This record gives sequence, C-alpha cells and structure tokens, in this order.
Amino acid sequence: MDLNAIYQSIQEDLSRVKECLRSIIKVEFPWLAKQLDYVVGGGGKGIRPALTLLSGKFYRYNLELLLPMAASVELMHTATLIHDDAIDKSMSRRGKATIFKLWGGEPAILLGDYLFAKAGEFVSDTQSPRVIKLFSQTLATISSGELNQFFSAYNLKQTRDQYFKKISGKTASLFALSTESGAILSGAPEKSVRILRDYGHYLGIAFQIVDDILDFIGTEAELGKPVGSDLAQGTITLPAMLLLERSPEDNPVKRRFENRDDPDNIRQAIELIRNSPIVDECYAVANEYCAKACQHLNQLPENNNREALLKLAEYVVARNR
Amino acid sequence: MDLNAIYQSIQEDLSRVKECLRSIIKVEFPWLAKQLDYVVGGGGKGIRPALTLLSGKFYRYNLELLLPMAASVELMHTATLIHDDAIDKSMSRRGKATIFKLWGGEPAILLGDYLFAKAGEFVSDTQSPRVIKLFSQTLATISSGELNQFFSAYNLKQTRDQYFKKISGKTASLFALSTESGAILSGAPEKSVRILRDYGHYLGIAFQIVDDILDFIGTEAELGKPVGSDLAQGTITLPAMLLLERSPEDNPVKRRFENRDDPDNIRQAIELIRNSPIVDECYAVANEYCAKACQHLNQLPENNNREALLKLAEYVVARNR
Repeated sequence: MDLNAIYQSIQEDLSRVKECLRSIIKVEFPWLAKQLDYVVGGGGKGIRPALTLLSGKFYRYNLELLLPMAASVELMHTATLIHDDAIDKSMSRRGKATIFKLWGGEPAILLGDYLFAKAGEFVSDTQSPRVIKLFSQTLATISSGELNQFFSAYNLKQTRDQYFKKISGKTASLFALSTESGAILSGAPEKSVRILRDYGHYLGIAFQIVDDILDFIGTEAELGKPVGSDLAQGTITLPAMLLLERSPEDNPVKRRFENRDDPDNIRQAIELIRNSPIVDECYAVANEYCAKACQHLNQLPENNNREALLKLAEYVVARNR
Repeated sequence: MDLNAIYQSIQEDLSRVKECLRSIIKVEFPWLAKQLDYVVGGGGKGIRPALTLLSGKFYRYNLELLLPMAASVELMHTATLIHDDAIDKSMSRRGKATIFKLWGGEPAILLGDYLFAKAGEFVSDTQSPRVIKLFSQTLATISSGELNQFFSAYNLKQTRDQYFKKISGKTASLFALSTESGAILSGAPEKSVRILRDYGHYLGIAFQIVDDILDFIGTEAELGKPVGSDLAQGTITLPAMLLLERSPEDNPVKRRFENRDDPDNIRQAIELIRNSPIVDECYAVANEYCAKACQHLNQLPENNNREALLKLAEYVVARNR
C-alpha cells in the first residue's frame, strides 16, 4: 500500500506544510540552523500533518489555518522524539544518527524545547484559543505518558490496561490532536469533531501497537534502529506482555529484566515471539482498533477523503516501517 | 528593601496566582503530583508574575486574563530551571535538591516538558493570540539563548556583546514577556506596551548581571547553591570577563578553563574578584540597565504601581539572593 496514493488529495498541500517546516531553518545561529535542517528536512511519514489536512477537508477547507496546524503537530512530534531519544539514549532513528548521538543529551533537551516553541508559534497562527489549549493539553498528556513509561520500565507486573493507557498518552493523544484540530479549524459540527477525534485516537492506538510489533519482527534496515529496542530499554509492550502470559515462569523477557547484561535474552524473546501466534494476536488487536477508528466515519459527508482515512487505517496495519 | 512592600498593591492577587499554580498539582499520577507540589510550592521571589500584574495595572486591570498569564510566566520559568539543572547537572537550587539530583536527567526532561505544557494551557486562557504567540517566541528565544551558552562554555574569547546577547536571550526575554503581556492584556496603547516591554527587558538584563555578581560574592546559604557555579560550568559572566581583561595572561579563570580538575582556580578567581573594583564596576553596569529600564516609566499614567516598578528596579540591584 502506497502512502502517496492515500495522500493524493492533499499531496500539494503537504508540500506546503514541508515549506512551512523548512521556514524555521532560517535562523542566525549556524549550529541551530544546521540541526533544524537535519531534523525537519528528514523523511518522516508525515502521517500527523496528513491527518490534520484530511480531517479539515469535510467542511470549510481553510488552508491558512490548517497549514500552521499541520506544521505544528509535526514539530511537536519531532520535539518529543528528540527528547525521547535523549531519555532512552537512542543512537539511531529513521536510519540516521539521533541528535543525542551527535551532540549529547544537553543540546537535545534545548533543541527539543526550541521545537516545542516553534510548534507553539505555528499553533498560535490558527488564532483559535480552543485548538491552542488542546495543543498544550496534548503536550501535557504526552509528557505525563512518557513519565509513566519511564517509571514503569523493568516492571514485569503491568496490565494491559496500563499498556493501553500508556500508548494512549504517548501516541494516540497526538493523533487525536491532529484530527480534532483539523475538524475544528474547518468549522465541523461538534458531532463530526468527536468522530474525527475518536478516529485519530483509535488510529493512534493501532499505530503504536503495530510499532510495538515491528520492534520484534522488523529488520534494522526497515526500522531505522536496532530490533528489540523496547525490551532493551525495559519497556514492556503488547508482544512481550503476551509472551509473559504464555510462560510466566521461565521466560527470556523475565530473564532480560532480571539480568540486564545478557543481550542473549532479547534475541531469544524476539525468536520466541516471531515463531508464535503472538504476532497474529497483536495484529488482531491493532485491527480491532482500526475498526473502532473507522466505525463512525460513514456519518461524515461523503467525499474522497473519507476513503483516504479508511485507506490510511489499512496502511497503518500493513506498513513494515 | 522588602519585596512585600513593593508587592503591596498586588499582594492579594499574587496569592491568587499561587492558587492557580497549586491547582496543577491535582493529577492522578502520584509521582507527578508530588513533584509538582515540590516545584510550584517552593519559594521563588515571584518577580515575573509580579511584573505581569503590576504592568497590567495601568489601564483595565483584568484579573481573569492576568492571573493565568502570571501563572504562565512563572511556570515557564520553573520549567526552564528544571531543564537547566539537568543540563548543568546542578544539585541544588534555592537551597533545595534539584529534580535532577532527586530523580536524574530523564524525569527532569519530561517534568520540564510537562510544565511547558501547563504554562501553555494557562496562556491559552488569556484568549489572546498575540500574547500566545509572544509566549512561544519567548520560549524559542530562551532555548536558543541556552544553546548559545552551552556551546560557548569554556570559550575564553567572548565579547561583552556576546555576553549581553546571551543574558538577553536566557533571562531578559522572559522578563519582557512578563511586562509586555501584562500591558497587552490590560488594553494598554502601543506606546505603553513598548515602554513596559523595554522596562522588563532592561530590568531582566540588570537582574542577570546581579545574579552573575552574586555567584561570586554571595554565600552558599544566600544563593541556595554553591558559590562560583558559573565558572564551575565553564560559563563566563561579566565579573569573570572583567578579570580576564585585567590580567589576560596569568589568570585563575584561564587556568580553570585549561585545567578543569583543579577546584583551587575557582576559589582564587572568587577571591580576586571579591577584592577588586570589578564588583563595583559590574554593579555600575547593572545600575545603568536599571536606569534604562525606568527612563520612560514617567510616560505611563501616574499611580502607585509606577512607584512599585521603580522600587523593584532598586530591589533587583540591592538584593543579596
């Protein structure tokens, strides 16, 4: 499945979002200009800005408001990744060295802060206090979700409820902001705002579940980072949780958490998960969330963007990177 | 000089700002609630929120807008301190252990992000896109100023221009936001907005110069952190700069930067600065900026808040902590 085909109706406007993003590179301070180029020039999938534009297409498509909003969600995403990489001491992301690897944790903190600020500048251009407040609330939800994840690292006793709460905070909240803001800024009626927000939220949950599956079944080349990164950082995701449920006693996940120095346990956990029905079970859960995401879309005005949102939900599960 | 006396006309409203700040403590996540209590309950001087309230007193004093704005500048300040402490690996601040010391750098990053978000929520309550944009621009200026400071650490060849640019970014910008936002939210005419913004900006420069002096001449009890912290972190401030100008060759600042392991050089630099006219010279510069800050205040409507701003400028130089 090809993202470009899904993005067809917004392709041109997505390039304008990229132009918006690139406009922040023009700063006096040479180091900063270079890093901004490095982090906003790169090849993300652009799902969040696409969600904002697509969600803004059902009522009054107002590009003057949607462009800065789309740029804003992408920058907020980039900023959180830079901070996450500093926290997890990750060396690569999307096949490129992280800011943490290149410059260390201190510049990563400040560059992330700078990007939050630029995201805030863009969102203020929407002139919508409601959307601006949602933006800030989302950042609070994300950082509180990440704190939650940080403090539950290496804790084997986590419930599925806790897992869904965590990924809801760290991923689904920004997907929901992306769609909800697009709806609000296009003057959608409240019912449609809710449908699009829920679409974003459930899609975000599915997206993160698939990310967590790919962390076990992908290749380093596809992932752009080492396989098994989550376990390496002590993060229990759905596949690891299911493996623990199957054999609670002698289990490489458990051994990994009890003896962090033996990398062999990660390799074993990856093997066990790959060769078990766990992967299918996780995909089934992701598909459930995609279905939930799409269930009320038929109540939106019929146009080709509804189709694009349905296709995007299929893509989120089918992707391998 | 007593801050309470200067704050007299806004004392009651400052308590309401504190209530606003304390309202963010009520969160489900126990660790977060405890840390929020720790960081917003503590005893800052409250200069930034006071500046917002005082600056809002010349035209329509609209507490419904000024309260969230005042809470917002204080939270932005708190968030930047938490990130700064993680970057500088500082162990104490205002006589208390830093979040970095208590929990490490990772939670410090996320707690700071959370506070930026809460600051953003408060500022969105002002419903003023102009002020919201200024807020984000200020955060960009601060983080870019901090990046600048980070990369110029241990660089002996810094000019006064660079020093003033740096403290303008990291300190004066937030002072200027505090006063400018108060003016805007009270419907001040543009000329008065400019006068109050300039007041905040120059006062912020003076404030930082005095901070930099106190770092050499204060006691650990007064400062709430070790004396000589700036030099210990490789930051050249005005007093160190003047010491380098006096004896460019054999100089403990230079020796400190060339051999970071010998703490004796910091002690020597402190002694040399304390026993030289450098302190007076630096205070003269701070006083110049205070005079600049106050020079146009007489064009504002005459009331007791004008007097309070003048007194606050005196306090900024006279304070010993």
